[in-house]
This record gives sequence, C-alpha cells and structure tokens, in this order.
Amino acid sequence: MSVLIKNGRIITAADDYIADIFIEGETISAIGKDLPIKADMTIDASGKLVFPGGIDPHVHLAMPFMGTFSSDTHETGTRAALHGGTTTVIDFVLQKQGHSLKEALADWNSRAKGTTVGDYSFHMAITDFNENTKAEIREMVENEGITSFKTFMAYKGALMIDDSQMIGLMQEVKKQGGMVTVHATNGDVIDYLVAKHKSEGKTAPLYHYLSQPEVTEAEASGRFADMADYTGVPGYIVHMTCEGALNAVRNATRRNQKVFVETCIQYLVLDASLYEQNFEGAKWVMSPPLREKKDQESLWAGINQGLIQVVATDHCPFMWEQKLMGKDDFSKIPNGHPAIENRMELLYSEGVDKGKITLNKYVEVACTNPAKIFGMFPRKGTIAIGSDADIVIFDPNETHTLSAKTHHMNVDYSGYEGWELTGKVKTVLLRGQMAIDDNKCLIDRGYGQFIKRSKVSGKI
Amino acid sequence: MSVLIKNGRIITAADDYIADIFIEGETISAIGKDLPIKADMTIDASGKLVFPGGIDPHVHLAMPFMGTFSSDTHETGTRAALHGGTTTVIDFVLQKQGHSLKEALADWNSRAKGTTVGDYSFHMAITDFNENTKAEIREMVENEGITSFKTFMAYKGALMIDDSQMIGLMQEVKKQGGMVTVHATNGDVIDYLVAKHKSEGKTAPLYHYLSQPEVTEAEASGRFADMADYTGVPGYIVHMTCEGALNAVRNATRRNQKVFVETCIQYLVLDASLYEQNFEGAKWVMSPPLREKKDQESLWAGINQGLIQVVATDHCPFMWEQKLMGKDDFSKIPNGHPAIENRMELLYSEGVDKGKITLNKYVEVACTNPAKIFGMFPRKGTIAIGSDADIVIFDPNETHTLSAKTHHMNVDYSGYEGWELTGKVKTVLLRGQMAIDDNKCLIDRGYGQFIKRSKVSGKI
Amino acid sequence: MSVLIKNGRIITAADDYIADIFIEGETISAIGKDLPIKADMTIDASGKLVFPGGIDPHVHLAMPFMGTFSSDTHETGTRAALHGGTTTVIDFVLQKQGHSLKEALADWNSRAKGTTVGDYSFHMAITDFNENTKAEIREMVENEGITSFKTFMAYKGALMIDDSQMIGLMQEVKKQGGMVTVHATNGDVIDYLVAKHKSEGKTAPLYHYLSQPEVTEAEASGRFADMADYTGVPGYIVHMTCEGALNAVRNATRRNQKVFVETCIQYLVLDASLYEQNFEGAKWVMSPPLREKKDQESLWAGINQGLIQVVATDHCPFMWEQKLMGKDDFSKIPNGHPAIENRMELLYSEGVDKGKITLNKYVEVACTNPAKIFGMFPRKGTIAIGSDADIVIFDPNETHTLSAKTHHMNVDYSGYEGWELTGKVKTVLLRGQMAIDDNKCLIDRGYGQFIKRSKVSGKI
Amino acid sequence: MSVLIKNGRIITAADDYIADIFIEGETISAIGKDLPIKADMTIDASGKLVFPGGIDPHVHLAMPFMGTFSSDTHETGTRAALHGGTTTVIDFVLQKQGHSLKEALADWNSRAKGTTVGDYSFHMAITDFNENTKAEIREMVENEGITSFKTFMAYKGALMIDDSQMIGLMQEVKKQGGMVTVHATNGDVIDYLVAKHKSEGKTAPLYHYLSQPEVTEAEASGRFADMADYTGVPGYIVHMTCEGALNAVRNATRRNQKVFVETCIQYLVLDASLYEQNFEGAKWVMSPPLREKKDQESLWAGINQGLIQVVATDHCPFMWEQKLMGKDDFSKIPNGHPAIENRMELLYSEGVDKGKITLNKYVEVACTNPAKIFGMFPRKGTIAIGSDADIVIFDPNETHTLSAKTHHMNVDYSGYEGWELTGKVKTVLLRGQMAIDDNKCLIDRGYGQFIKRSKVSGKI
Ligand SMILES: [Zn+2]
Ligand SMILES: [Zn+2]
Ligand SMILES: [Zn+2]
Ligand SMILES: [Zn+2]
Ligand SMILES: [Zn+2]
Ligand SMILES: [Zn+2]
Ligand SMILES: [Zn+2]
Ligand SMILES: [Zn+2]
Repeated sequence: MSVLIKNGRIITAADDYIADIFIEGETISAIGKDLPIKADMTIDASGKLVFPGGIDPHVHLAMPFMGTFSSDTHETGTRAALHGGTTTVIDFVLQKQGHSLKEALADWNSRAKGTTVGDYSFHMAITDFNENTKAEIREMVENEGITSFKTFMAYKGALMIDDSQMIGLMQEVKKQGGMVTVHATNGDVIDYLVAKHKSEGKTAPLYHYLSQPEVTEAEASGRFADMADYTGVPGYIVHMTCEGALNAVRNATRRNQKVFVETCIQYLVLDASLYEQNFEGAKWVMSPPLREKKDQESLWAGINQGLIQVVATDHCPFMWEQKLMGKDDFSKIPNGHPAIENRMELLYSEGVDKGKITLNKYVEVACTNPAKIFGMFPRKGTIAIGSDADIVIFDPNETHTLSAKTHHMNVDYSGYEGWELTGKVKTVLLRGQMAIDDNKCLIDRGYGQFIKRSKVSGKI
Repeated sequence: MSVLIKNGRIITAADDYIADIFIEGETISAIGKDLPIKADMTIDASGKLVFPGGIDPHVHLAMPFMGTFSSDTHETGTRAALHGGTTTVIDFVLQKQGHSLKEALADWNSRAKGTTVGDYSFHMAITDFNENTKAEIREMVENEGITSFKTFMAYKGALMIDDSQMIGLMQEVKKQGGMVTVHATNGDVIDYLVAKHKSEGKTAPLYHYLSQPEVTEAEASGRFADMADYTGVPGYIVHMTCEGALNAVRNATRRNQKVFVETCIQYLVLDASLYEQNFEGAKWVMSPPLREKKDQESLWAGINQGLIQVVATDHCPFMWEQKLMGKDDFSKIPNGHPAIENRMELLYSEGVDKGKITLNKYVEVACTNPAKIFGMFPRKGTIAIGSDADIVIFDPNETHTLSAKTHHMNVDYSGYEGWELTGKVKTVLLRGQMAIDDNKCLIDRGYGQFIKRSKVSGKI
Repeated sequence: MSVLIKNGRIITAADDYIADIFIEGETISAIGKDLPIKADMTIDASGKLVFPGGIDPHVHLAMPFMGTFSSDTHETGTRAALHGGTTTVIDFVLQKQGHSLKEALADWNSRAKGTTVGDYSFHMAITDFNENTKAEIREMVENEGITSFKTFMAYKGALMIDDSQMIGLMQEVKKQGGMVTVHATNGDVIDYLVAKHKSEGKTAPLYHYLSQPEVTEAEASGRFADMADYTGVPGYIVHMTCEGALNAVRNATRRNQKVFVETCIQYLVLDASLYEQNFEGAKWVMSPPLREKKDQESLWAGINQGLIQVVATDHCPFMWEQKLMGKDDFSKIPNGHPAIENRMELLYSEGVDKGKITLNKYVEVACTNPAKIFGMFPRKGTIAIGSDADIVIFDPNETHTLSAKTHHMNVDYSGYEGWELTGKVKTVLLRGQMAIDDNKCLIDRGYGQFIKRSKVSGKI
Repeated sequence: MSVLIKNGRIITAADDYIADIFIEGETISAIGKDLPIKADMTIDASGKLVFPGGIDPHVHLAMPFMGTFSSDTHETGTRAALHGGTTTVIDFVLQKQGHSLKEALADWNSRAKGTTVGDYSFHMAITDFNENTKAEIREMVENEGITSFKTFMAYKGALMIDDSQMIGLMQEVKKQGGMVTVHATNGDVIDYLVAKHKSEGKTAPLYHYLSQPEVTEAEASGRFADMADYTGVPGYIVHMTCEGALNAVRNATRRNQKVFVETCIQYLVLDASLYEQNFEGAKWVMSPPLREKKDQESLWAGINQGLIQVVATDHCPFMWEQKLMGKDDFSKIPNGHPAIENRMELLYSEGVDKGKITLNKYVEVACTNPAKIFGMFPRKGTIAIGSDADIVIFDPNETHTLSAKTHHMNVDYSGYEGWELTGKVKTVLLRGQMAIDDNKCLIDRGYGQFIKRSKVSGKI
C-alpha cells in the first residue's frame, strides 16, 4: 500500500517547505516537488501544515490507583492521542516496592499488549533500588528496549527512593547507556504540609496547591541536577512547572552541565487561579500543581532559550466520580488531568498562533526532541526518508472549541471546556495507515506497536 | 542541468538518514530511497556524509586596513571557503564615521560584485549612529536585504559607538525587523591596558593577550545583553571566547531573555599558550584573543546547552609580512587569522569525531542556525525540497593534514600547521553546480551571488 | 571643660549597655557604671539612647550649579545635620575638567573653611583623569587627608570619566592606599532616554524617572565591580537604589570580591509613586531616582545581609524656585533633595522602631561604617575611650512630625512633610561641646573642623 | 574582689583603643584613660591586645561514641579552651531517637554540671521530631535557656531527621523564638559512597574524604536555606567548608534571605592534601572533611563579605588509640579533631597577622557574633560596662610552636604539630577571676557556669 500526500507545507524541527510525501508501506520513501508517482491513495494537503506525528513522552494509561485505574486505557488513551495528532506515547511502568521490574513490566504488558491503538513505549519507574533491581537495569536496556528510568523524589513509602538509591541508580544507568528521569519535588516537605493542612481542617483543592509550594520543586530539581552532575548520568526532569525549578537548571549551566527538561502543556496555559473555587478545582488537581503567570512566562522563555526541550502532558485522567473520592480531603483526590488529545492543538494555538514559538520549535518540542532524547529517533519524531510515516495534516486556520462532549478521551470533563482554538488536526497517518480522518479513527485496537528504544548519550 | 547524489547519509540539523538527492537546476527537487530518476550527472555518496553547505556568518574579505587589505579577497576567500565546505559567507561592510551606509556598501560592492566565487551576504557595521544613519537602516532592511547591524564596543575613534548610540540603534533596528550584533569587549579598558603595556616596553604578542583580559569581554557581553533586554531588539554576540562572557548570557536567562551567541572554531580548539613564544604568537593575534582550557570547556558546553548557536571563524587573514608590521609593537599587528577553509573540517574532527557534539548539532551550528538567525532560511542552511542545492559530500574516515602548503586561502601560514584531522570534504555543490571535487574548484570567479536576507524575529 | 552623661543606654555598632560617659575636653575619657566623677556639666540620659554622632558620607553643600548653588551652605547644612544627630559629613569637591584637583580643593575650602558648624571632610571627585591628575592623587592622600576619589559613570562632558580613565585611576588609587567611589549609572543610556523623552514632548518629572531605568544602575554597578575586581582597588558604590544593582554586587561575591555599598535613606522609605503627580514630583527629582517597593525590600535585606554597609543621604537641596527651572523640562530640574537633618531620625523610626534592623546595625550603618570605610576611625564613628566626644542623646519614645516649617535645612519644602516619626534627637555633643539641645544650636559657625582621613585597606 | 587592667589596646567587634579596664566582682564596671582607681589586683597590659573572651559555639565534650567518649571531658576541654583564650563554649546535647529532650539534657548535665572549668551552654540536637519533642521545644526555650536546635541532614538511623521533620521543627522553633542550626550534608549520598568505597576495598582515610564530595555539602546547604526561607525561621549552618556551600548561601541572598554561617578554623588553614598519606590522615578525619585551597579562599572571602559570621572548631578529639578503631575501615574512624585550644591563636596568626582580616573582624567572628547569634549578648562576647569580665590579654608579637607535648587538650596528638604561630594568649580572666596566667590554669573544676540563653530574632 502506498500513499501520496500532495503539496503540504512540511514542517520538521529544522525545515519548512512545500512538497509531496510518498509513503510505501509503513515508511516514507520519497519527498519532492510534484513527485511524478502514482500511489494507492492520494491526499491533497494544499494549504495545510504537515507535521511529524506528535510524541507524548509522559502519559499514564490504565494506571492502578486505589483499587481502580486512571480512566483512559491503552486503547482509549492512544486513540484519543491520535485524534489530537499524537501518534506515539511513552507510558510509565511502576515497579512495586519489594517486587521486580520484570513483574511490573508483565503487569503493564497485560493491559497494553494487543489493545493499544497508537504506538507506545515504556519508561520503567524504579521505586526500589537494590541489588536485584540493579541487575535488571541491564536487562531492560539490552533486551526490552527500555532505556529510561523514572524516579520519584516524593510519595515516600510508595514510589519514592532516597538519595542513596538515586546515586546508585544513576551510576548503574549511566553504565548501561540509559537515562534517569525524575519527578522532582521534595516529598517530605509536601507530606508535612499535607498533614498540617488536614490537621487544620483545610480540605479544599486549594490546599493541594498550597501543600506543594514552588520551593519544593525548585529544591528537588536542584538536588537532582547536583546528583546527575556528580554521577555524569544523562538526566531529565519531567513536568517542570515553575521559575524556581528552571532557575535551578539555569544555575547548573554554570558548571557546564546539561539537564533535559520537560514541561507540560497545562503549565504553559493554565494557572493556579483555577484552584480558587470550590471543589471544581479538583479537575486540575495534579502534581505538581498549576502555578502562577510568572511561571508561564518562564516556561515559554525556557523553551526559546533551549533549556526546556519537551512539551508533554502527564496525561492521567480520572472520571469526576473518581475525583469525588477527595470531596472532603484534597489528598484523596486522584492526581492528574486529561490532555493527551489536546496537547498538539493547544500548543499550536497558544504557542505558534500567538507568536510565542516558531513552527520549527513546535515540532522540535512536541515531536522530535522526545524521540531523540528517548532513543526512538530517527524512526520516530520527524518526516524523513526511512522514518515511520507518522504524519499529521493540520489546518492552521480552522477554529474549533474544546469540550468533553466532543473529545475522545475516556473522561467526563475537559480541563479546557469551551476553549476556542485556532488550528485543527485533520488527518493522521500512523506507519502509513490512515489513522484519523474527518474526526474518525480508522485503525483498530491492537494496531499500536511497542517501540523498543535505543541507548542514549545525553547529547542531541 | 540535473544532478543525482546517490546513497549518502544525509545529515540536517534535525535528521539523519540514507537517501538519494535529486537536484534540478539550482535547487533540490526530490529526496528519496533509490529515486528512479535519471540525471545529467550522478554522484555516488555511499559511505559518505552529506551535509548542507556550511555558512560562515563572520568573515572579513579584502577588509581595508592601514592602507592595505586583509589578504583574502572575495574571490580567494570564498574559493577557499568552498574547498572547506562553506558555500555561503557573510562579510562585514564597515561604515566610515562621518559617512553614509550607502557609501560603505558601494565600496564593498566594488570589490565583491562579480568577483566572488561562493555565495555571500553583508552585515552592515554601524560605526556612526545619527539621524542620517537611522534613516538608512530602513533602506538597508527593505531594499538591500541587509538585516543585521554590527556594532563595536571597542576601537574608539574608529569603529566604536557609545551606549547612547547603541540604544538608539537598537530601538530603530527593532522597529525595522532587524538584528543587532556586537563585538562585545570593553574598548576603553583595553585601550588603557594597551597603552600601559606599551609604556612599560612590553611589546610582544603576549601583551596583546594580556591587554584583553576575560573581564573586558564578560563585562561588555553583560552590558550588551542589558541593553538588548531593555530595548527588546534581537541581539547576537559575535566571537564569544570565554566562560565569563557565557556566564553573562547565562545570567540573562534568569530574566527570560534570549541572546544569540556565536563562537569561532579557534576558540574551541586553540588556547592562549600559543602566545607564550616570541613573535610567532602573532599568527594568532586576533580580538578577542585565544583564552584558556577552562574557556574551551565552557564553549563546548554552551553549544550543547543551546546557549551558543553558531560556530563561525572571524576569518581575517594577513600575510606574514603584514603581521610583521607589529614586530616591535603588538598593537600594530593586524588582527585576525585564517580559518574560512578549516572551520567545517576542524569542527567535525575536534567536535563530532571526538564525541563532543552530535552530527545534528554539527549541522545546526555550522549551517542551519546561521541561515535562520540571519534570514537566509530556508533558501540556505539545510537540505530540503526547494532549498538551494548547496551540498557537501564528506568522508568521515579520511584523515589529512592541514598546512599552508596545501590550503587555498591567500595567506602564507596556517594557524593549524600539521594538525591531523579525521574527516574530509570531498565534493561541494553550490546551487546545483559542482563547485569542488577532488580538491579542485570547478566554478569561476563571479559565480557567487549576493544573498538578500529577510527580516528576523529573534526566534528560531 | 568636662561633661558627664549619666545613665544612658549606650549603643555602638557592637555594644548595648547602660553607663555613664565622662568627657574631658574634646574626647571621651571614661565610661562606667556610676562613675564617681564630678564634671563641669552633667546630663541625665536615663531612659535615653546614647549613639555616636552620625556620619553622613554623602552630602553636597553649596554645590555650584548653573550659576547658583545647592541651597544649604556648609554652615546651614552642617547645622541642620547637627539638629538631626549627624556630627560629621563628607562633602564632594568636584574637579573641573581641564583643571587641577588643587584648584578645586581651594574653591571648596573658600566656602567651607571657617564657616562650617559641624565637622566635615572631603571626597575628591575625579572628572578628568590624566597624568597631572595622577600626580595629584598622591598629594591628596599624603598631604590633604583626602583618601577617597569619587567617579561618575554619567554626566558626559561634565563629570563623567570613561572606563579607560577609570582603570587608570583605580590602579593609581590602589597604589596610594585610597578608595574609589562611584556614581554608578550608565550615563550614555540615560542621555539617550532623556533626549528621546524630550523630543517626544515628555517633560514632566515622571520622565526623569523613566529616563533612568533600573538597568542603567544595575549595568554600571556590575561594570564598576568588574573593574574594581580587575584592579584590586577598594571600591564603594554610592547611593544604590535597586535590586538589580544589589544583585550585581551579590553576583560579585561569587568571585570572592567585596565591594562596599551605600544606600540613602530616601531609597529605603520613599518610592517612585511620588513621580505620578504633576510638577510636585520635582521635589524628589534626584539621580538615581526613587524606585519600587521591591527595591526597598532588597535594600533593607542588603543591610541585614552585610552587603550594604552605609546609609547616607546624598543631601543636595534646592529651593522650590530653583526646582522651577525645570518646570517645562525635567532635565533642567536641579537634582537632589534635602535629607541631611532627617536621616538619623528616619532610619530609627522606619528601621529600628519597625523592627527592620537592630540598634547595633543602626549605629553601624549610620555612624561606624562610614568612619571605618573612609579612614576616620577610631576618632569618629563610635563611643570609645579616646574617640571624639561626638554624641547623640536620643529619646526613643518621643514622637514628632517632620515639616519644612520646623526643619533647619535651608530649603523651603520637605521631602517628608507631615511624616510622624517615633524617636527624636534631644541633645548632641560635638567634640565635647554641647552643640544641640532642646532644638537649639549652641555652637557657632566655624566651630566645625576639617577631618583629615587616613589610608584604607578595603577591609573593615 | 577587683581587678584593674592597665593600658591595654582594647579590641572589640567595633572598637580599637588604649585604656584601662576596671573589674568589680564578675563584671566590667569602668573603662577609661588612666583610671584613678585602686584595685585588688593590677595587670599591666601595655603593648598587649585585650580581647573579649573567645566563644566557641561548636564543641563536643565527653560525647558518647561507640561505648566510649570524645577524649576531652567538660573539665579538660574547657580548661584547654581557657588556655587558648576561649572562655565560653557551647556543647551539643544529643537527643536519642525514641527518647525525650529532657532525658538527653539530664544525661549531659550529669557530665557537665560541677565539673566544667570554663563557662558553657548547650545546643539541643533534635534527632527525633514528633509531637512530644515539639512540646519540649517550648520548655527548652522558656525554662532551660536553650534556644538553638541542631539538626543533622546526615547519619540516617542515628541522628538524621528528614525534611518533613525539619519543616515541622522549623515552624515550631520559629514560634518559640529560637534558631535552627544544621549539619548540612546529604547523608544519603554519603552513605552510598561510603558503602561503595568499602565494597571496593578502599579503606584508607582518603576515602573518608572522597565519600563526602563538595556537592553533598553544597546541596544540603541550599536545601536547608530553602526550608529556612519557606518557614521564616532563623537558620544557621555549622562548619561550612567549601565554595559550593557558600555559593548556596550567596544565591539565597537574591531572595533577600539571611542565613547565618559558621566555618571552623581547620577549614580556613588546612586542606585535603593531608589525606594523601596513609593512616596518618586519620588525625583529620572529621565531617565534613578538609577541602581544597580554592575553598579556603572562598571562606576567608565569605568572612570579609559578611556572609560567614562565626569561626568555631567543632572540637571533638579522640586519642590515637581511638582513631585506630578505623585502621582497616575509614568509616570506623571516630570523626573529629582537637582545636578548642588552638582556635584563637591560629585565627590571629593566620588571619590577622597575615592581613586576611582586621582586628575588629577577628573579635567579631571569634567572640561577639557567637554571643549575639545565640542569645548570650551582651553578657558575653564583648568588653563593655556590665558585661562579664571575660578577658584575654594577648601578646601580638610573641611567637610559639603548637605541639601535643605542650597543649592542654586531653588528646595525644595535635592537628597542628610544629606550627609556628605569631601571637600568644598570656592572661585570661573569666568573670573577673584570673583563669589563666603564664600557661597555668588558676581556677578549679566546677568554676564554669551554665549560661542560659535568650530568644533570638535572627537579626544582629
Ligand atoms: Zn510526576
Ligand atoms: Zn506522571
Ligand atoms: Zn570583532
Ligand atoms: Zn570580525
Ligand atoms: Zn550621584
Ligand atoms: Zn551625590
Ligand atoms: Zn557536624
Ligand atoms: Zn559538630
């Protein structure tokens, strides 16, 4: 099967030109001006932008939580992602403390294998670093194609490792050619503030926000950078939200260090004023929480400064009924919000269309850098000969309105209800298959492949 | 005329893949796997790297100096550039104080027009900002395609403008959609130290170095960033050499500012120990001077941190006889050294081959970013459909030795005599024409075109 | 003649105790609990604070300006100072460009000698550094007891020296054992903004403020610190107003540098909202201008951090009629405001009484540090055996209201009209003489002595 | 009983003058020129310096350790301190995890009460912060005169509290008017490195040093400052050793924060090259370890910048036989070195005599600031009317040699064996009693008093 996309304005992290793209089977085989080729299917992309399929390297699908799961399965989540122009996601496997990485991987595979619609990969979250775990790191890298290891500096007793384990993990991961990523907040301080607020009867979602002040993230980000510098491991900070944390990374540049930084779309476009309502604020209860306007400015600047390389989502949706578990206690509200479907369109409308970032930067942070940093490049993340034909055809002028009524995520509210956006995903191809067209998903559950990832050097 | 380059490993700032490139006339018209096309000429690039033509945005050709000129003309300089894989250069037109920009441009045109072998453009150096000059800024941008304006914070009485003029210029350039670039050193301090050293009978080239201590560059870089931040103009610091100056830019990130930074190949690979010999050190008398090992480390780090975007040369060669003008007085040594031909090969050998930077980063800093920052993109700086077919075919394994005996620059010494490099430019195309092959230049004087540049936003 | 001050709470920069002070002639000869001594005069200081006489190291008395003079003469100014608890001031002698230091000193002596009421010394402002000036530096230090040399980075053509002169001066002053002080603002940038505002018809006092944005002071403070670090001279920044400038000094601590910093009382207690009225704002037209609330916070913090050592006034009063010279052009408003009489009481009321600084810190920044930094210690600036009996007896509880109607400065408005203060100067002794009592000045014109100052090391 | 000290050059943190001091009973009652007083004893101090008694706020006397104790008891330690000019020390009471503060205090009292020769106070080390401990904080402050609470960010399982406890403690201590002090190193990272080195068979004292790299201290110092800023508690970092940690405090100045910093004499004068020998290096095994020359420079600069306020010792001596416990395992070497007797003389000789600090600064950091910061002022730390007559008469010219043969500390080696010093303690008075004269201790075991301390504001 072959496809010819004609006359689109093709945008990569580096380029911007009008041409035809010819796809044979799953990959791109030619790009050119008026390609004199016949294809099984021809798509007219005149007047449209043509992007590489988006990569969201931070999602939580069917994540176990208090006896239930985050509401998007690997099926519904990746399908919604495709609707929004994201063709590949990286989900997090969570080691259970006292258990092996292999067990955790098997557990996640039991939900993801054969059900996923879009392509996916796994980060492995290390919650219990010991001699056994250490031995498994190598297996993950060499055999499973899992080369990034997530750590938590928060959630003591469940996910958190201490700095001793962190250093040990870093040294081993460096040896094996992997990367250490981190949820960088000072969990101990947060635990204290949560307990204090609760003991004072402060139970509203606002206190979720006030229990995770900027300093908890700034401190932990600096500490992680310190340890990464000491061990020399490639390091990556997930979901950065604030000026203080970015300044920690800026400070680290003085010692010639490079730490990769991811922010998420919500931190660029939403702010903490959303918590100043009653329980409604639960929609945006996530960790870290939304921050202030000044932090948004820092994050946009960080992207243009080259200090923030990735815009992800930390997609982790819960139904309103699930959110209600925390009605009387903010600390029981399941953390997370739905964004997997909205990321590419929000970033275009708020970023490109409003002049905050260029088209090349857009593709760089939403598609190419995630692929490069995490070892999926050049198969994923770009439009180039030999790469997977993961392609988004995007109308930069069409306006539309975000709503839970029309979105495809399995969650009954939208964090962006009523937002009017400029620019819309029209057609999406995944490995040469028409996956989305005219708001319909044309590929089946199980089409999605697990993407094995290669070792990384920490340089891109 | 058409050309088909087969099976090369094509590297752009974003991509890395093996394919054929088909060129029709002056531009690239198709890229693909085994393109089923016949061309007038076919080049086998198997086993080779294929880069976009290099862009050196900082050269001084036939620059007037004390009644003579820098020893490479627009002809010899751009021909040597081509030999080294650089297909486009940006030369500096220098306004004479008391005279108009138009006059200066006419003067430079009189030497460049019809004689240049490779493609070229001009920066306009503003040495006398007044109401007349202000009016000409718009003309340069709108009519001449000159959108970058160079300033000097040194060379009082000849090239320097004071901070009052700087602010005025910045506000006007911002209004017209241009960029302000700067030779950032504190000229007054340097003037004092030069005079002091001379009055003490310290006349060797070493005192050139000691008259321009790191602080002079760090201070001026910070001051320029301050003024660029205040006015909001896109700013670009040329030839950064040292940690102190880079730290000034790092500090500026805290206020969400982006300043573009260029370093030059010599500052990455040479150091000030070269001045610790007798007059031999005159070969590397340039401003700013070479620095220390710790500065090299900072500059390589700056590239990987995304804080340095360009590697240029500040090519400004003088014959040994010309250098001898300063035999008894370092301040009379004509400033500059030859590098236009060596940049791409040195950066590959010392940077890519030694693992300091990736291939993508190599193309980004040597080809693509100069084009983007200075408004020549997408015509120049990349390998993409519709772009000029400026292409370098590079053997990553061939070793060779740099020498004045074999180089093509019109200068009788090499700053890198005897250096053994890994990686060699084999074939160069300029706008579809075979320009260099087998160490021979196949295009004529006058082939080079002046490239009009577009307005810039300061975002890339 | 002898005086016994009984039972006061004596505060020095280090100490805090209740005792009697016995003065013989001009100096303190004993301090003790219930001293069993008879004196010619006894003062009961029970319930009072006893401070060393204040030292204001930044005043402009009878300063020549556009054919007239700042409105306080050495007589009226030092008398007013005494009323406010300041017993010694340091005035600025201004070299005329093209003229010698000696001439300038003679000029100032012609006004100050024999007329001054309180004690005084001179800084020498170097506005024209050349070989002649260089030779005079030594004379000033060795013969005249003038060891501090003021520089201006603004007021080109009148007072400003360029960075070349600055480095030369610094090296000479270091050699002679002196200190370089600086009005640190980027005069060129200010000149540009002044001209621009005027050309746009913006003539109100507000534009005085907007012509001297924070960056002009931050930049110049950093530049001065850079040059002081390079030359190793003890450096001192006068009248610092803002966070940006303080951050420049904070940054300099990283290279192990110490730069002395002075702020003035007005920058601690007034802010730029005063310019948002019509010509009334002219009362506070001074350079640098008043800043923002966040700058006040930085300055108070800087004092407690030990990074700001001195609180002065930059007292330079002009009658309202003189201010009116700038009615139609803010740049013609004579710069300066009256504060010499108010400093000690304002700093007590706003600083000590409101808990911002301790009593020891109060004496340190208002009395002791100026003496130490400028070479008048231990004769001046403290209450200790052998020191001049310059003593302020202060009622910490008495409240009073500042007003032009009651102040003793020769100026027809107050910058603090109607301010209610807690704490009042009751009695002042100068070298053992009762100078102020019950709001009356009891010493005559001419009583004030010129204080020769010693060399300084830059360490205190 | 009364004492008259005649004609000494009296140095306080602020002053420097020649006078007589008259002591009645335990306190100073008069200071003056040629005091016409008869005393029970007269001491001629002509040609001598007269300092306030030194205060060492960081000592460990009879500290329980692995079934034995640090080798100086409260008796021998304070006697040695007196020989060296230190009249008051603050020792650390260590809470046992699972036990109360009261128990710990009783334990320490059982060793200190009635045995101590010099005056002393206690810090309370909080190793287990919980609701019971929280309640005891108030008791300590209000009833016991213990207002400073020491924390450890290292020694997990024994002394360390986590950040959750730290925040809780800080909020409580702030409420009660106390101060939190900290051993700021990242214990988890150190634990990892210790275990790693041991597992690799690296057992020499050098690996003690390599297990506590600069980053462990820099990180923890920054983290402590972050938490102190968030809670607003007065914070104090003990035994700072390095540039990285000082830079953390320098960075904190940007947010207008003040953190108190103590260094110790050994970090100013010794460096890590001492570990590059065999087991001999065990003499200087302490935590944090000695650092590099660049760190010494930073610390001296920090003192002059006002960013380091105190020079202490962390005196914790062990006999060579005790040190031998770690002969085959550096982690078993008891940590600490003897310095209580040497601090004042070393700091004079290396600091004042070599021109690094002034005499006033000497007294400030060694005597006055410890008293002020920890609530013993004005009773202790200065020479002033009403203060305790704790006085050191010091010959600035006498040279002598440090040696275990002649020192008075109960330890059989000296960390400074053979060092020749300029300046010697000649006579020491403690509360008016001749305590040391002619190298003899003239007061008895039990003379020393416990000094109750007052609340602190964090401002001095
Ligand atoms: Zn997270
Ligand atoms: Zn997450
Ligand atoms: Zn230049
Ligand atoms: Zn140049
Ligand atoms: Zn001034
Ligand atoms: Zn002034
Ligand atoms: Zn400790
Ligand atoms: Zn200790």
